[in-house]
Order: sequence, then structure tokens, then C-alpha cells
Amino acid sequence: MTRVEPRRPGGFAELLPGEQIAFNAMLSTIRDTYEKYGYAPLDTPDLERTEVLLAKGGGETEQQLYSFTREGSKTNLTLRYDLTVPLARYVAEHETELTFPFRRYHIGKVHRAERQQKGRFREFYQCDIDVIGSDSPLIDAELPAVINEIFDAFNFGEFTIRLNNRMILTGFFEGLGLRDVSAEVLRVVDKIDKLSSEVFVSELSSVGLSDAQISRVRDFIAISGSNADILQRLKTIDIPSEQYHQGIEKLSAVVAALAAMGVPESRVRVDLRIARGLDYYTGTVYETTLNDYPEVGSVCSGGRYDNLAGYYTKTELPGVGISIGMSRLFSKLREIPGLISIDRQSPAEVIVVPISTDQQSYAIELAAMLRKAGVPTVLFADDVPMKKKLRFADKMGFAYVAIVGDDEMQSGTVSLKSMETGDSETFTKDDFIVRLQK
Amino acid sequence: MTRVEPRRPGGFAELLPGEQIAFNAMLSTIRDTYEKYGYAPLDTPDLERTEVLLAKGGGETEQQLYSFTREGSKTNLTLRYDLTVPLARYVAEHETELTFPFRRYHIGKVHRAERQQKGRFREFYQCDIDVIGSDSPLIDAELPAVINEIFDAFNFGEFTIRLNNRMILTGFFEGLGLRDVSAEVLRVVDKIDKLSSEVFVSELSSVGLSDAQISRVRDFIAISGSNADILQRLKTIDIPSEQYHQGIEKLSAVVAALAAMGVPESRVRVDLRIARGLDYYTGTVYETTLNDYPEVGSVCSGGRYDNLAGYYTKTELPGVGISIGMSRLFSKLREIPGLISIDRQSPAEVIVVPISTDQQSYAIELAAMLRKAGVPTVLFADDVPMKKKLRFADKMGFAYVAIVGDDEMQSGTVSLKSMETGDSETFTKDDFIVRLQK
Repeated sequence: MTRVEPRRPGGFAELLPGEQIAFNAMLSTIRDTYEKYGYAPLDTPDLERTEVLLAKGGGETEQQLYSFTREGSKTNLTLRYDLTVPLARYVAEHETELTFPFRRYHIGKVHRAERQQKGRFREFYQCDIDVIGSDSPLIDAELPAVINEIFDAFNFGEFTIRLNNRMILTGFFEGLGLRDVSAEVLRVVDKIDKLSSEVFVSELSSVGLSDAQISRVRDFIAISGSNADILQRLKTIDIPSEQYHQGIEKLSAVVAALAAMGVPESRVRVDLRIARGLDYYTGTVYETTLNDYPEVGSVCSGGRYDNLAGYYTKTELPGVGISIGMSRLFSKLREIPGLISIDRQSPAEVIVVPISTDQQSYAIELAAMLRKAGVPTVLFADDVPMKKKLRFADKMGFAYVAIVGDDEMQSGTVSLKSMETGDSETFTKDDFIVRLQK
Repeated sequence: MTRVEPRRPGGFAELLPGEQIAFNAMLSTIRDTYEKYGYAPLDTPDLERTEVLLAKGGGETEQQLYSFTREGSKTNLTLRYDLTVPLARYVAEHETELTFPFRRYHIGKVHRAERQQKGRFREFYQCDIDVIGSDSPLIDAELPAVINEIFDAFNFGEFTIRLNNRMILTGFFEGLGLRDVSAEVLRVVDKIDKLSSEVFVSELSSVGLSDAQISRVRDFIAISGSNADILQRLKTIDIPSEQYHQGIEKLSAVVAALAAMGVPESRVRVDLRIARGLDYYTGTVYETTLNDYPEVGSVCSGGRYDNLAGYYTKTELPGVGISIGMSRLFSKLREIPGLISIDRQSPAEVIVVPISTDQQSYAIELAAMLRKAGVPTVLFADDVPMKKKLRFADKMGFAYVAIVGDDEMQSGTVSLKSMETGDSETFTKDDFIVRLQK
């Protein structure tokens, strides 16, 4: 037989079972929390018509699309590169069938033909929530409240949700007479953490800012203190821009709602440098970082947009969304020693091992009882030497093995062997189930 | 703004929220049951290298592939058309990193450019389990035992898991001197339900069978009765084929193990017409149908194969797998009136509605308490007239609305309004949570 080398396309990651179990446990936390807040699951095709996907232009992403036309077909198709454009298409296509405000979550894969390098994936999971059709600041607060609950459950230490409102920045630039270059200034501000002080100044200068304007921008985005301090300080700055003051009001309302929702103040930080300049946001913007692992970068970001589906429908649909980039997050956290355990190769908690085929029926019965009691259970099936059975249990990461031989079968008991110490303890079937349910 | 019509590629389905919630509930049942038996989750890239995917030839499917080469790349890529070939590639690629027997499940989308017609999808979900590296008949029984538990939980009435062993058929054909045309005969037998008696005879005849041989094949596959009757009858037929008798032994062992595993005998039927002629199976084969909805056809099928990954590795890896085609199953069941409820547009069980913004903080507090107690809850956020709030709750399918006004806020209570009767009942916060937890 001619053999083909079994390998994946470059840049496409996949996980081993222990990793996948850990990854899925994180996905479950995300899914359960999204649903706890009433977000409905959504799923859209992996492929979209290219003309639909690129209605607003793909920007930087346009060079990274997986697009093609099948032989004999006239339709150019593209693998979705995010979950927001498909949401816009979905909402526009099903507008009359949906109830607004529309809370939805979407956990799915997206594809971008990124240049191959470590930590970059061409296929990755996004976990998005969006609310379409509401401009209430309570919604702007609800999304980070959901994120707070998820990262609290993840237990990767403290984290910080940074907040801003684009209206404050654009209003401020407008007030400085920079309305025409507002987008360019935003883009520079967005990169401030990556730029040296000199480059920051020269980039603003090349956009056309005077030294005095540059100095005001720098002072402005450096405003710090408690959230209340910053908001108070912003109100005192004399900026002749309606937008600026509306932005402050909105941001204040979001901060107040987050406190009412029980999100610890220590995790919420107003940060005027959060601009998300490359995106289509028009209001609140978010970024989240892990305090103990700053090298991971932003683990969750998003914001508010005035008009989600303007390229597809006349209806103005304001929305706000936030996204966890799970593939990237998981791969970064995996590199941190001791953070994510991948020892368990099985979702089962116990393995039942008959010593020989003589006890097979009893082993089957025991495994069925355990599963019925809600304990995920593997039944060892092959007729191989006991040593091999125990090696399997060990390699699979089972801490305990339920062994049944003739004695156990006759007395209706089971021996629980610890793989770590080698000790065994005998239980009646009922006691065993109670023990495992704990 | 130039608008683009928001539409999906032809043949690509997507669900509305109420449908998606019902679909996901079924997926959860499948996932939970797979994990209860210790199957590990697996996820492989949506795209594979075409040369890898087609190592064994795609057969009929080859005309239906979504294949393409990106500009500037030399690699031809294909969207996977099933989950079995990616499993073979995965197991071969990670052979040394896996522990065998390897139990895995995979729930994911696959793509086939089918001719567009009702009930055919170009993108659909498969829910597969496979066990690689064991030839124990207990494993051949475990898969239908898992399927039994899933369809029992689905509650779509009684169902029948039909079983056969390919060795019995090929051994029987061999015994009739039909070894060289065994595959062709299998293919005709596999279609028997779709063929008239005349066509069946003429197809076998054109393969080269004599009238006497055709008659023996017909009598053979018509053998019926209880499972024990059929197996007993098979043993008495004088067929000079080792394979035939081994097949009977294996099938008997699987039937016995299914009984030991508690699968009701009424749901298990040995059926010699189950051939799955177009597939690569070499041992046990399965098909499952819903007794009350025969029009749905086979809802779950699979079988045993001797050598899963022979195109990628020298290691012989026997396996057995079974697959639920969820997209097709769901779409068929949706057509049956009253079977699947899609009334709930939200995964939340309750919606908290403040009468005005004055009670917002109290509403936020109440919603947080409910979620903490494990009750998925939506908080109505927009400042709109009460009528609009109630219309939203009604359209979303909430049976009850938790209303909070000034009275409730001052007394620490909540009014639960039934959307059906319009009646309200007032609870203290604690009593309310206890009530909802039930």
C-alpha cells in the first residue's frame, strides 16, 4: 500500500486528549456563563458568500482570506474570519424573525491565513457575546460582568477589565480641532504601549499635530487615579464638544452599573488609552488582561457599535459585543508551568477492570450502576494481562482503579486501588457509589 | 451606502434561536452520554491537505469536495467531508502520544457539495464515537449501548438498533463460490429495501450469479425470528467458510454483551440485510431507526474496520465507530408536528423586569441572586413602556415574568406574573429563589 504522510496543513493546531479535555472545560465555563445571563446560542455556516463577507471591506484581514470558487459554481465562497460579520448578515437576513434586544453567543472557529509563526493560528476559536438592538448602558455593563464571572471561575488569578468610551477620545480630539484626523490619532493612541515616547510623538506629528496638541493628547491619556477620580477629572476639562461630555456620562453610567452588578472595583479600570483604533467601535470599548500574566496580552476585548448591519439593511441596529479568543488564550496559558493540568486523558472518573473474563458480567453491571449514579466510567474491555490493564489506567491518568476479581464478584464488592500508593480498599457496591459521587 | 443582500450560500442551513436551543439540547445529551462512557473529546482542523484526505480515494464523495489552493500557496486544501478520515490521520500522526485502546468522540461540521435539494445539506453536523486499538466484542456492544442511552433520553419513542457482521455475509458468499464478486453482491444486498424483487434478481444476475445462487442469497438474508433464533439457524447452515463461522461467533458475543449491558432486547435486532456495502467495514455493522418515524430513515450507523489508518501508518489499528447525523436527524424531526418544541428563544428561565429605572438597582441585585442560585436569568435593561417590556417577554417565550416596582423594592419582594393567565403572585426574594430552583 502506498502511504501518505499524515500531517495537517501548516498553521493548523490540534490538541491531544488531555489538552482537549482542559480546553473544553474552559469552553464549558464560557458557555454556561453566557447561558446563565440568557444569551441564546447561535451557529452560522463556516462559509459565507465572499461579496457578503466583504461588504464593508475586510481591511487588513482581506489579504488573509480563504476564498475560492468551486469548479462548476459561480459563487465565490470564503471561510469566515470573525463571528461579527456573520452576525450582522444573520441579523439582517432574519430581522423579522428575531426578537430585539437580541442577546446571542457564538462559540466557533474562524480562519485567517496568517503568516506562519509561533502563537499565530490560521484556525482558531472565538467565543463571542453580543446584544443587538439596545443602547442601554446596563448592557454595556452586562458584558464585562459576564466576563468577570468567567475569569473568576477560570481561577487564573486577578485580572483587569479596562474600559473607555470612544466618544470621549473623538470628542476630545474634536475639541482640539483635530476632527479630520481623529481616526489617525486614535490609531496612534491605540498603539501607545508598543511605541517609544519618541516614535509616539513623531507619529502624531506626521499626522499633523502641533507640539501643543501632542502635549495635550499625552497629558490627557495619562490621566490616572481611581475610576471616580478619572471621571471627575474628565468633567473639569474644558472641551467644547457635546460628544465628549456625552461620552463621560455614558462611561460613568457603565462604571456605576458594574458596581451595582457586584463586579469588584479592583477589576474595573477606566483607561483613556484603550482606543481599539482599528475597529468599528463607536462607544464603550473593553480590553481584559491577566494581572499575573501580562505577557499573555489582551484576553478579551470588544465594544459598542452604532450600526451593526448597515451594509445589509436600512434598519439601524446598535449593538455591543465582546469576544474571548480561546485558542490563543489556551496556548499562552499552556506555556505557563503548573497552570493548566492535562493529566486526565479521559472524561471518566473511574475505570472498572475485571481481573479476567470470568468477572466481565459483574464488571459490566458495576460500570452501568456507576454511570446511572452519574459517575462517568470506563469499562476495560480487552482480555490482556493485568499488568497491561493497570498500565493503561496509569497512562490515562486515572488516580484510582476499581478492580473486580472472583472474591469481589462473590461478595458483591469492589476493590479500589490507588495508582499512586498501590493501596487497595474494599467497598460494597453501594458504599463505593456514595464514595465516588463525592 | 451600497447595500449587499444578506444571504447564505445555497444549501447552507442555519437555525433560529428557538431551533438552535432545541438542537443544542440534543447535542448536549449526546456529548454528556459519550463522556459518561469515558470517550475523550477530539477536535481536528476543518481543513485537511487534499492528498491526505484522499489517500484512500474519496469514492462517491470525491466529486463533492470543497477543495482549493490559496493564491501564493502550493498546498491544496479540502474541507473535511467526514470525521473518520481526519481521525485516521490524527491517530497516525499522534500514534506515539496516544494511549490505546483510544476512545474518542468528535462533534463537528463536515462539508459536501451535494446537489441542492430538500433535506440535503452542504454543511452538517456529525456526532461520532470510535474506539481504536481493541478487537473486543465488548467494544462492539458498547457503542450501541451508548446509542441506546442517547435515544432513550431523546424520548422520540421506541427505536431499533439493527446489527449484522460483514464476516457472516462475505463468508456466506465465499461458501457459495462467490468470493470474487463478494463486494458487488454486498452492494446489491445493501440496497434491497430500495429495489423491487425483479430488479434485485436482475442485479445479482448481472453480477454473474446463477438462479440457484440468487435463490440461496434471497433465502439467507430473509432469515428472521428472535435474535437467538436467527443465530441458532445460522449455525446450522452448512457453509464451508471459516470466516462465516467466526462472524456468527462474534455477532453472538455482541448480542450477549448488549443484553448484559442492559439494552432491552426489543431494541436490538440481528438483521442479515444490513450490509453497509459502500463502506470500509469488515466486522460488526449497525443501523438505527425510529419505530414511530420510519420515514426518517437510518438515524445512526457505523461498524467495525480492521485497519483504520493503513494509508498513513504501518501499525494495524482495528477500530469500531458509530455516527449520529444530527443536522439531518434534527431537520427531519422538526417536520413532525409536536415533536420538538422551539418556543423558548432564550436559555434563561426567568426575566426580571423593573417597572421603571427607579428599581433598576433592585432588579440588578435580584437577577444576580438568581444566577448565583443557578437560575439562568435575563435582566430587562431598556427604559421603555411596560407594555413593550411584557411583549418582549412574551415573544421570547418566557412563561413567567418577575416584575419589580416600588412596592416590591421597599418590601424586598418580587411579583411573578404568569404570561398565560395574567395572574400575579408575590414572593419574598428567598421564597422566589426556592420556587424557581424547582
